[in-house]
Amino acid sequence: MPTFNTGLPSVRQIQSFIKDKTSVEIGLLNNQTAEGRILWLDENCLCLLENREEKALIWIHAIAYIKPH
Amino acid sequence: MPTFNTGLPSVRQIQSFIKDKTSVEIGLLNNQTAEGRILWLDENCLCLLENREEKALIWIHAIAYIKPH
Amino acid sequence: MPTFNTGLPSVRQIQSFIKDKTSVEIGLLNNQTAEGRILWLDENCLCLLENREEKALIWIHAIAYIKPH
Amino acid sequence: MPTFNTGLPSVRQIQSFIKDKTSVEIGLLNNQTAEGRILWLDENCLCLLENREEKALIWIHAIAYIKPH
Amino acid sequence: MPTFNTGLPSVRQIQSFIKDKTSVEIGLLNNQTAEGRILWLDENCLCLLENREEKALIWIHAIAYIKPH
Amino acid sequence: MPTFNTGLPSVRQIQSFIKDKTSVEIGLLNNQTAEGRILWLDENCLCLLENREEKALIWIHAIAYIKPH
Repeated sequence: MPTFNTGLPSVRQIQSFIKDKTSVEIGLLNNQTAEGRILWLDENCLCLLENREEKALIWIHAIAYIKPH
Repeated sequence: MPTFNTGLPSVRQIQSFIKDKTSVEIGLLNNQTAEGRILWLDENCLCLLENREEKALIWIHAIAYIKPH
Repeated sequence: MPTFNTGLPSVRQIQSFIKDKTSVEIGLLNNQTAEGRILWLDENCLCLLENREEKALIWIHAIAYIKPH
Repeated sequence: MPTFNTGLPSVRQIQSFIKDKTSVEIGLLNNQTAEGRILWLDENCLCLLENREEKALIWIHAIAYIKPH
Repeated sequence: MPTFNTGLPSVRQIQSFIKDKTSVEIGLLNNQTAEGRILWLDENCLCLLENREEKALIWIHAIAYIKPH
Repeated sequence: MPTFNTGLPSVRQIQSFIKDKTSVEIGLLNNQTAEGRILWLDENCLCLLENREEKALIWIHAIAYIKPH
């Protein structure tokens, strides 16, 4: 995250998705979408456990949106 | 926002959209559009309450434009 | 603007467009174009009064070019 | 330019295009191309005198390549 | 990597892919994909040994995701 | 290069391409490709001598990958 500050609403929202094992849809800037649940988040990437049990590293700079699925 | 300074016209405009519950259209760099009203804004994202009552985290870096709908 | 310095030619050019109420075409990185006149510019966005009298916040990071229309 | 240092080869090359009034083709990240000659360059933009005598402000962040036409 | 800190989960994950010679799929922002195994990572790029034994320098800024193949 | 440090593997790899006059393929984020050999590299751009003997300034921010051709 450009600003990885756990006090920010955006970071707290993603941390809630992680804690609650929320199923999310992630829309990417290349128009692909990925679905699954987020395992962790750092300054560069988040890790998505996709529904077929693959773990994908998704770059923050490539994300357009995240929403509960 | 690259410059998240509440004195800036762009930040104040979005804060007005939030306060006034203005219905907006957000155009993304991947050519998708999203509609709804903005709930909050931070340095990384804004949160959009979409018309079907989903909350989407939309990354600032992915936004092309916002306009009242 | 990455460098929002009113001494720069690019900033002065846009400020002339604002002052002279020049009708401009703005080409975006997602291949959309917008037309109208620029009302203000800050570090993040410019505000475009579109021809149908809508005000759009356009992100600087999404702009490919601006030219008089 | 991310690094606007007149000692850099890239900056000097563009300054030669300006001085020599070289006709160039500019390829943009949105796959559009523009042709003309460069009038000036600053940290944010270059100004292109297009062949139909329009002056376009082109954002550096939107440029993929420049080559003599 | 914007934050090239070997303590970060994203950096450690990629270093595991390198050490374990994991076959990965890399999705790019231009919608291309590349497959192979990662040889090294630095602040700008990673080097991918593609399946036809070509080594490609892939820019971090162009990556949307990486996942085991 | 975001990090133009001649000790980095990515910078050294490109400097080897320059020294060895290696024929390379450069894939851009707009899905275009360019072929030729690299003449120089600086913080903003590299200069590619294309096969038809044109010199193109290619912006680092627009590059997805480089590989020997």
